[in-house]
Amino acid sequence: MTDIETINKNPHRRYNILTGEWVLVSPHRTKRPWQGKKDKVQQTKLNEYDENCYLCPTNTRAGGEVNPDYKGTYSFVNDFSAILPDTVYQKFEDGLLKSEAEAGICKVICFSPNHSLTLPLMSVNEITDVVKLWKKEYTELGAKEQINYVQIFENKGAIMGCSNPHPHGQIWSHHSIPVEVQKKTKQQKEYWEKNKKSLLQDYLKQELIKDERILLKNKHFVALVPFWAVWPYETMIIPVNHYQNISQLNEEEETAFAEIIKKLTTKYDNLFEVSFPYSAGIHQSPTDGNKHEEWHFHMSFYPPLLRSAEIKKFMVGYEMFATPQRDITPELAAKTLMQLPEQHYSNQ
Amino acid sequence: MTDIETINKNPHRRYNILTGEWVLVSPHRTKRPWQGKKDKVQQTKLNEYDENCYLCPTNTRAGGEVNPDYKGTYSFVNDFSAILPDTVYQKFEDGLLKSEAEAGICKVICFSPNHSLTLPLMSVNEITDVVKLWKKEYTELGAKEQINYVQIFENKGAIMGCSNPHPHGQIWSHHSIPVEVQKKTKQQKEYWEKNKKSLLQDYLKQELIKDERILLKNKHFVALVPFWAVWPYETMIIPVNHYQNISQLNEEEETAFAEIIKKLTTKYDNLFEVSFPYSAGIHQSPTDGNKHEEWHFHMSFYPPLLRSAEIKKFMVGYEMFATPQRDITPELAAKTLMQLPEQHYSNQ
Ligand SMILES: O=P(O)(O)O[C@H]1O[C@H](CO)[C@@H](O)[C@H](O)[C@H]1O
Ligand SMILES: O=P(O)(O)O[C@H]1O[C@H](CO)[C@@H](O)[C@H](O)[C@H]1O
Repeated sequence: MTDIETINKNPHRRYNILTGEWVLVSPHRTKRPWQGKKDKVQQTKLNEYDENCYLCPTNTRAGGEVNPDYKGTYSFVNDFSAILPDTVYQKFEDGLLKSEAEAGICKVICFSPNHSLTLPLMSVNEITDVVKLWKKEYTELGAKEQINYVQIFENKGAIMGCSNPHPHGQIWSHHSIPVEVQKKTKQQKEYWEKNKKSLLQDYLKQELIKDERILLKNKHFVALVPFWAVWPYETMIIPVNHYQNISQLNEEEETAFAEIIKKLTTKYDNLFEVSFPYSAGIHQSPTDGNKHEEWHFHMSFYPPLLRSAEIKKFMVGYEMFATPQRDITPELAAKTLMQLPEQHYSNQ
Repeated sequence: MTDIETINKNPHRRYNILTGEWVLVSPHRTKRPWQGKKDKVQQTKLNEYDENCYLCPTNTRAGGEVNPDYKGTYSFVNDFSAILPDTVYQKFEDGLLKSEAEAGICKVICFSPNHSLTLPLMSVNEITDVVKLWKKEYTELGAKEQINYVQIFENKGAIMGCSNPHPHGQIWSHHSIPVEVQKKTKQQKEYWEKNKKSLLQDYLKQELIKDERILLKNKHFVALVPFWAVWPYETMIIPVNHYQNISQLNEEEETAFAEIIKKLTTKYDNLFEVSFPYSAGIHQSPTDGNKHEEWHFHMSFYPPLLRSAEIKKFMVGYEMFATPQRDITPELAAKTLMQLPEQHYSNQ
């Protein structure tokens, strides 16, 4: 019996080496009947152009601006930015009340002019252009004095608070270092200072030898279910090279990144034969002027679905007040994802 | 102009003294149009007894056990416990993979035999019995060798992953100290060691003087919107006395706690005239045998609704990868809740 089989016989906690936090795993709990809420998934086929979509080329946005007739990717400043560039930095401290002004830039990143597409349905070339735009935005935004962190992410699907199916992601970039990034900086730094090696590179080596949670690999990237995955089908794409951020990718690596994103998101769609909802994001080195040798960039996918297109995992109650909890083991999730075809179920 | 008005003019971050983490506040963003997902809220009137409910008296549960014909509160071991009592403690460490077995007891706490009730619709006496049961369970579970933390919580509403409307909460109790509790222990301990005073008691004093976020108070408890609230209408009930846990409440205080719970949840229902969904939980001192003088117990409510009974706040994308974010300010939320009547909209 291998170690992981012993672990998986009982409820247990797993340690996340990147955040220093834990997740509770209840392997025996998959048989729980579900009488709760089911979310209807919209399955209507979308048109390539939608006159009511504020992201489609040539349409007018809420702020009054008109989108150009763009043919590839397209980015612009969010009309409803949560953070604004002209906020003057100020600190407030009044006894136990503590706050500080936040300044920054929020952008919307259109992946394609075609309203009906999603990442798995785009070509590797088209996704490579998205990677190139991420690189450009990370570099340009990160170069600004005021901006110390650039958070690239995508909310996909209505269930993930995405209000428009047009293929797009977002970037929120700002002065402060976000809570999650601080945790990961701390953990990676401790390891780097002790071992002069990348924590994630050493982890990747171990995962490749074990070969229990690896989903996909090419010359430059590996996609896997992390040992400490919280969401039922959470995954992570890790570059083989110890790169701090995406600006370091060369052309060949950009394509390899696009290729593995396409394959992974295709597997996701194939899981329940539905356009698979998730939040995805890239964690990478802060742009605060420090070298951050400890950082090893990676892209994570947090999908909410648990048992079917309608039944999601609720991160509520115990999870909010105590510790994240999952039912199916990361190994079972990995096995399921491994066995899925790399060809999209719709045959597109 | 008071300080808070200055802060609220711009996007800013606020510091949570209990967790040491931050929340991003975007006061200007309330005008964002919402074209996204709307959740239908079930408004059907429930019967006092439902033959298909596994929590109603005399019904048979999934595990085959039959509920007694209980007349007040009733607790039992969860038929689908996420944690089990007979798990032997074991540590696994294999390079960067780290996990440990978790043992404990999960219980279900029925608040009332009446299937159609919720906390705001119950009498103060009936809620006092719930408080008494929480005390009993905290004390009995906490006394067990194996159990170092007792998490009491309630998931209310289908939108919060609650699969049964019968008024009930849960308790998950176990060996490890949960992630969220560790954060709060650390912060309170630091303050206690430095000042020999309760962090939360000092905070409460400051809030009472400012009187900007106070919703309700009686002789023994205060309900307020914390300065660092994450969820749109997040609130917190704090005992005036520096108590580490609910076992220290005397009879008068039990009733005062029940009274403020009833008033607060009534305000919640009145906000959108709907049975208001939330996850609520009590954070208190671990039962690990240490004194935990630093701890000051409190009950928090995390409700997902943002603008109406159908439109919730999505904690996705940026929030998952970076920092929790909110649109309406805690002061605006407090003002709205303050102005709501203490009489339930249904006139029950
Ligand atoms: O235990 P229940 O009610 O079946 O399940 C609910 O509460 C649990 C504890 O907060 C969560 O882990 C589940 O995701 C949620 O659906
Ligand atoms: O920016 P959007 O798409 O309007 O809004 C969505 O993404 C944001 C960033 O993750 C979240 O704060 C919102 O809750 C969500 O609905």
